[in-house]
Amino acid sequence: VTNKPNKRKIINDPVYGFININNDLVFDLIEHPWFQRLRRIRQLGLTYLVYPGSTHTRFQHALGAAFLMGQAINVIRSKGHEITEAEAEAVTIAILLHDVGHGPFSHALEYSLIEDHTHENLSELIMDELNKLFKGRLTLAIDIFKNRYQKKFLHQLVSGQLDMDRLDYLKRDSFFTGVTEGSVGSDRIIKMLSVANDNLVLEAKGIYSIEQFLIARRLMYWQVYLHKTVLSAETLLVNSLKRAKKMALEGQELFATPALHFFLTRKFLKGDLSPSNPELRAQILKNFVMLDDTDIIASTKVWEMHSDKVLSLLCKNMNDRILYKIEMQNSAFSKERMDELKNKCKTKLGLTANEVDYFVFSDTIINHTYVPSDNRISILFKNGTIADISEASDILDISVLSKVVKKYFLCYPREIK
Amino acid sequence: VTNKPNKRKIINDPVYGFININNDLVFDLIEHPWFQRLRRIRQLGLTYLVYPGSTHTRFQHALGAAFLMGQAINVIRSKGHEITEAEAEAVTIAILLHDVGHGPFSHALEYSLIEDHTHENLSELIMDELNKLFKGRLTLAIDIFKNRYQKKFLHQLVSGQLDMDRLDYLKRDSFFTGVTEGSVGSDRIIKMLSVANDNLVLEAKGIYSIEQFLIARRLMYWQVYLHKTVLSAETLLVNSLKRAKKMALEGQELFATPALHFFLTRKFLKGDLSPSNPELRAQILKNFVMLDDTDIIASTKVWEMHSDKVLSLLCKNMNDRILYKIEMQNSAFSKERMDELKNKCKTKLGLTANEVDYFVFSDTIINHTYVPSDNRISILFKNGTIADISEASDILDISVLSKVVKKYFLCYPREIK
Amino acid sequence: VTNKPNKRKIINDPVYGFININNDLVFDLIEHPWFQRLRRIRQLGLTYLVYPGSTHTRFQHALGAAFLMGQAINVIRSKGHEITEAEAEAVTIAILLHDVGHGPFSHALEYSLIEDHTHENLSELIMDELNKLFKGRLTLAIDIFKNRYQKKFLHQLVSGQLDMDRLDYLKRDSFFTGVTEGSVGSDRIIKMLSVANDNLVLEAKGIYSIEQFLIARRLMYWQVYLHKTVLSAETLLVNSLKRAKKMALEGQELFATPALHFFLTRKFLKGDLSPSNPELRAQILKNFVMLDDTDIIASTKVWEMHSDKVLSLLCKNMNDRILYKIEMQNSAFSKERMDELKNKCKTKLGLTANEVDYFVFSDTIINHTYVPSDNRISILFKNGTIADISEASDILDISVLSKVVKKYFLCYPREIK
Amino acid sequence: VTNKPNKRKIINDPVYGFININNDLVFDLIEHPWFQRLRRIRQLGLTYLVYPGSTHTRFQHALGAAFLMGQAINVIRSKGHEITEAEAEAVTIAILLHDVGHGPFSHALEYSLIEDHTHENLSELIMDELNKLFKGRLTLAIDIFKNRYQKKFLHQLVSGQLDMDRLDYLKRDSFFTGVTEGSVGSDRIIKMLSVANDNLVLEAKGIYSIEQFLIARRLMYWQVYLHKTVLSAETLLVNSLKRAKKMALEGQELFATPALHFFLTRKFLKGDLSPSNPELRAQILKNFVMLDDTDIIASTKVWEMHSDKVLSLLCKNMNDRILYKIEMQNSAFSKERMDELKNKCKTKLGLTANEVDYFVFSDTIINHTYVPSDNRISILFKNGTIADISEASDILDISVLSKVVKKYFLCYPREIK
Repeated sequence: VTNKPNKRKIINDPVYGFININNDLVFDLIEHPWFQRLRRIRQLGLTYLVYPGSTHTRFQHALGAAFLMGQAINVIRSKGHEITEAEAEAVTIAILLHDVGHGPFSHALEYSLIEDHTHENLSELIMDELNKLFKGRLTLAIDIFKNRYQKKFLHQLVSGQLDMDRLDYLKRDSFFTGVTEGSVGSDRIIKMLSVANDNLVLEAKGIYSIEQFLIARRLMYWQVYLHKTVLSAETLLVNSLKRAKKMALEGQELFATPALHFFLTRKFLKGDLSPSNPELRAQILKNFVMLDDTDIIASTKVWEMHSDKVLSLLCKNMNDRILYKIEMQNSAFSKERMDELKNKCKTKLGLTANEVDYFVFSDTIINHTYVPSDNRISILFKNGTIADISEASDILDISVLSKVVKKYFLCYPREIK
Repeated sequence: VTNKPNKRKIINDPVYGFININNDLVFDLIEHPWFQRLRRIRQLGLTYLVYPGSTHTRFQHALGAAFLMGQAINVIRSKGHEITEAEAEAVTIAILLHDVGHGPFSHALEYSLIEDHTHENLSELIMDELNKLFKGRLTLAIDIFKNRYQKKFLHQLVSGQLDMDRLDYLKRDSFFTGVTEGSVGSDRIIKMLSVANDNLVLEAKGIYSIEQFLIARRLMYWQVYLHKTVLSAETLLVNSLKRAKKMALEGQELFATPALHFFLTRKFLKGDLSPSNPELRAQILKNFVMLDDTDIIASTKVWEMHSDKVLSLLCKNMNDRILYKIEMQNSAFSKERMDELKNKCKTKLGLTANEVDYFVFSDTIINHTYVPSDNRISILFKNGTIADISEASDILDISVLSKVVKKYFLCYPREIK
Repeated sequence: VTNKPNKRKIINDPVYGFININNDLVFDLIEHPWFQRLRRIRQLGLTYLVYPGSTHTRFQHALGAAFLMGQAINVIRSKGHEITEAEAEAVTIAILLHDVGHGPFSHALEYSLIEDHTHENLSELIMDELNKLFKGRLTLAIDIFKNRYQKKFLHQLVSGQLDMDRLDYLKRDSFFTGVTEGSVGSDRIIKMLSVANDNLVLEAKGIYSIEQFLIARRLMYWQVYLHKTVLSAETLLVNSLKRAKKMALEGQELFATPALHFFLTRKFLKGDLSPSNPELRAQILKNFVMLDDTDIIASTKVWEMHSDKVLSLLCKNMNDRILYKIEMQNSAFSKERMDELKNKCKTKLGLTANEVDYFVFSDTIINHTYVPSDNRISILFKNGTIADISEASDILDISVLSKVVKKYFLCYPREIK
Repeated sequence: VTNKPNKRKIINDPVYGFININNDLVFDLIEHPWFQRLRRIRQLGLTYLVYPGSTHTRFQHALGAAFLMGQAINVIRSKGHEITEAEAEAVTIAILLHDVGHGPFSHALEYSLIEDHTHENLSELIMDELNKLFKGRLTLAIDIFKNRYQKKFLHQLVSGQLDMDRLDYLKRDSFFTGVTEGSVGSDRIIKMLSVANDNLVLEAKGIYSIEQFLIARRLMYWQVYLHKTVLSAETLLVNSLKRAKKMALEGQELFATPALHFFLTRKFLKGDLSPSNPELRAQILKNFVMLDDTDIIASTKVWEMHSDKVLSLLCKNMNDRILYKIEMQNSAFSKERMDELKNKCKTKLGLTANEVDYFVFSDTIINHTYVPSDNRISILFKNGTIADISEASDILDISVLSKVVKKYFLCYPREIK
């Protein structure tokens, strides 16, 4: 992306050193308030309660992914595959904005605040609105993002098994958590990228890097993303917001920033973001772009003093890091165990049968590291043949890696063990 | 600090790898809500608007400084100087809690919200209260912190030219900003620490490390701490809060979290924290420990929509990163220049004479890297003599380094250039 | 290892920062010429022809492994398992000296210079001799090294699936080659070490770190240790020495340092190091400890000008990095292909049928990442049960990892493609 | 340097990650045996006796400096200053070859082996010869190297206060020694480079980086390059070679590789490399390019067993790291002290008056970090004015930094203290 820009920016990034912004449109998008908002949304939500260093934001990640995209473009071009200036700009914008629809603490928001809407829906909404503001200059970026553009490999650079999103977040999350062995060789993998039959492929000598990438990702999943204590903290937050939303919908008085208040006092339905509801859509957008981590934390701190015992305790526990005790296993927890814990908890904390479900509950999490069916890692051999990593690797048993792992977890207050 | 603990904690830190907590009291203090609050206070305030990586918190810094203290204790003991177990615990607690009185965006808070009170006053207040809660077990730590304990070198490890506070924050801020060349050789400096005449001294072969430390600190000052754009952002925040407090004191309606509301609606005086005002003191403490970065940011976002043009514009500019244009020079800015800019600004933004001062103004900043008079770096030679670094270094002109640098800066909106 | 030492040494290591030597005997062993010799033996032989940074030595590796041993001792003790001061000293010495019998470019030496003797034989010989010099103070270290000591876990720290040798060399080789994604979480793995039934075990939450360790090791094998070009370079060296030894044994004049001359002009047999041959044993030892990388390289440079065409060409090619073209595949190369290449080569370079085998040949290499049968990684669960990693990991297919991979490679001069 | 190359090379460097070679001529020069020779010459000579990690070579450094040159070219071009493709290739070659004339252990060689010839003389000789081999394609590179080309700033990139040589070696030496605080912000400094009046200048906001660079360099000088123990080791080597050369010139039998033998048995004079001596010049070149670290070390090891007591002891001490005791001070050592030590030494070691000078002697070293008179660091201000760093920095006292520091050192065997 090297047109002659009027605006130049060099951003100091602890992971890559310096990130150059050489493109006017990219520059203007970064300056836009809706992108600046990502400075106030942590990449890993409450993970900093376990890994104190992981306070990095989605803003950094988006810039980092755009930086890697610039490297990938150079590598692919150097191997004789055309990427026009317009395509380079567009694919850079697509990766820059791929997470722009993330709300604070994404899971909590998606499941408790805006029911039935994912951050992908919201990213698309915001990208469409930005496209209007920028007079259609984002159309190609959006086409690539939505996989409607004919050169499929450009979309795969944005969203695929080896996209710049994953390469950046694995490297960045490893850096900020201090889980150094979760780092991936993003440089080496990018050097091996190529294009064949319009698909993103990896040259065969990169197979070992891919194996390491898959296992490092698996490590990061269990060591960080699905860490028991992180899960426990996030569950506290989800339950706090569930309780608050229930109370708000019942008409109870509740302190909240205006943006959060909007989402607490409305039930959302699938069609709410559809163009056929332009007013509601506009209202949701207006409130959504005002919402970030600080609204949630600032409000939950106030709720610590609310008269509702459940809400105040959940919030206090989260903010003071008095997390649930959490157990994890491969099979469901027995009803007997659950009932026993609930009874203890009701007595200990003086709760009703309905209330206790906020404190003693079980749920499941799943992790799949690699799913070859929907989205392959294609390996390009010197003789020009292409194979999926599951066939190309003479040793890695991908069927094992792609197996969905489902774990059951059980949460209850520390004091009732 | 290696008594046999009931509680053990290993914390993953991206700067040092692993930090072990082996002491029950230290463990319990870290778990306390007043310490956990530091997870929600960024070490470098708004610096992340310039260095996106610098979202690290005072929580990490306090742990890191305590980690370095453990190393320093080992080194000093290995050179034959006694540090008892009780002293080791106390000096570790003293460094752990040295910043516990920091509010959000310290400068803004100290100058605009709690007039006439520094974070040191508040740290002492909180340490005293913790001491009551922990039944006097913090007394020695507080004595060391306040430099009332006979072994002066223990205080110097907490607060002095070579204290663990500075060694950690320089290394950590360098790490998270990505200004790698600002890193200091904390390991090497600590290895060189010793004690002579009850003073912390540095063995002579460490002179070059100290020179590098002083210059790296200077680099960090101008490259990060006093970076023009950081200054511009902080000034926006200070002015936002000044305006809000003015309005609140005048009785205007203003959204705020309860803790922030408390500080916005009261004028503070020097004696407010004195033990002779136990009730006010308790009320200030109660609100202070509920206050963190999220209260400020969440509230300023709401103020963006306030009908007061000054307040809404200041807040919008801060949160959307539309920062003041800032100029810096060694002499005062002329009245003519100021008046011209103010006139332009009044016209452009439609402001009154009073209002324009929030948008066009000048001020000064000072930096002194080393002040030998109050607080020396003592060098210990092999023959047992001791000299200040200013004499010990045959080349470094400390008089130059310790000269106070005063710079004038001028801020005005970008659009009136 | 913290007796009160008369001698203290702090060594600056780029991988770990500082390495402290606090034990007099360890200090004296490091100072001994036979250990200092390791400063002149590169850890990775000719790998620096592919990864220019990998010029690090066995000296650094031995110190690094001893450093990790100190950490492991602390962790294991902190979990309530006794390691006496004498044992701590001994196990540190055992790891320090585990590679002291490595000659220059180990493979070349073992297969071409001292036939039928491994570096393990020579390490034992040197350790026995050092034990005499140090009046029996190494006896316990040697017992641990040879697995004759009752506490088996001490031997496993020196030589086992998770020994300090591997943890250091993987981390160090990754650091110096620049293959950063091959790095292992040695810190985290060591924190998880424990002892059960006198065996070294790993706490269950370390499973993902072990998986990452096994895969990173695999990456390092194929990316570095068995890299095609490295293999090509090493083969050139082996062939140079084979040719030189053949010529020397036939009585031809050949420049060589005295120590190298000794090994070139003698055929070695299995019993040569046996105590029943004290004189020969002493002579081999005397020459062996004088031999390092410089003898080999300095001599091969002189051989570039030798009248023997084969020898001079092999040496010139190695030193000027005109390496064999090398092909690798999973099945044997056909006789037809070999014959064709040999014929071309004979014509092109003017070689006889015997001579051409130095330039066109094929061989095999094998790699096994994990062999559970002989040497297990035992996982300790919270309930006290122990399982091998192959059972403990719910996802990693160890049978796949432990499968021996055999590859065939074919070498021939670049110019005869 | 991005012409469309037939040959591409990606080299893995632990300092910068990946170094791309995209230029055919650069590629061919790297492949040339005279450049490959640098793989066998350590960048820091015997420094690895103090910092075990510093076994890195001049080969790596030359590649690293060429890598930085590529970055500098991009930055300078992006600021609108023309560098043609031919100039870019030439300046890259100039930096790549700037050290090609370094012999093993440069100081030892320059003062003891090839009297009156510096490595610069030899670099020029080799570059001229390469230019013949490459049919004049190096002419522009040589013109830049010798500062005969009209665009002076190109020469300054190769040799000047801020040349790519220094930026690479400071960063690299810091990396491999583990003296992390000696690292310089090469990235940031390069970003600030520009050209004014045909001179290389640094934009004013880079002043603090330059101060840090100057002080880090000073630290590296005293902590590494002029480290007492390094000095002691190098002096041992110089004395070994002096003694050997004296003996060789006197006709005594001495083992040596042929290339070393050539230099030991000849006295060199100023004019020996002049084109008017083509035969001698060719002979010197032929032997010089065969000489590297291994010749020196392999030969000194043999000399350990020489009947000359002085030579054997010097060599043994060097290789076994039994270094001189060394004292350093700001004034000359007294004749009395010297005589006393010499007498003790003569008695202790049984030496004659002539021989003792190899074991007890004093000398001086000097260090100047910055010499503004010959070679300035020019700072470019926003208003277009230019000033030397000594004026531009409002605080750094360059007169102090540029003061030549002369230190006296005294060496004697450890055992005669």
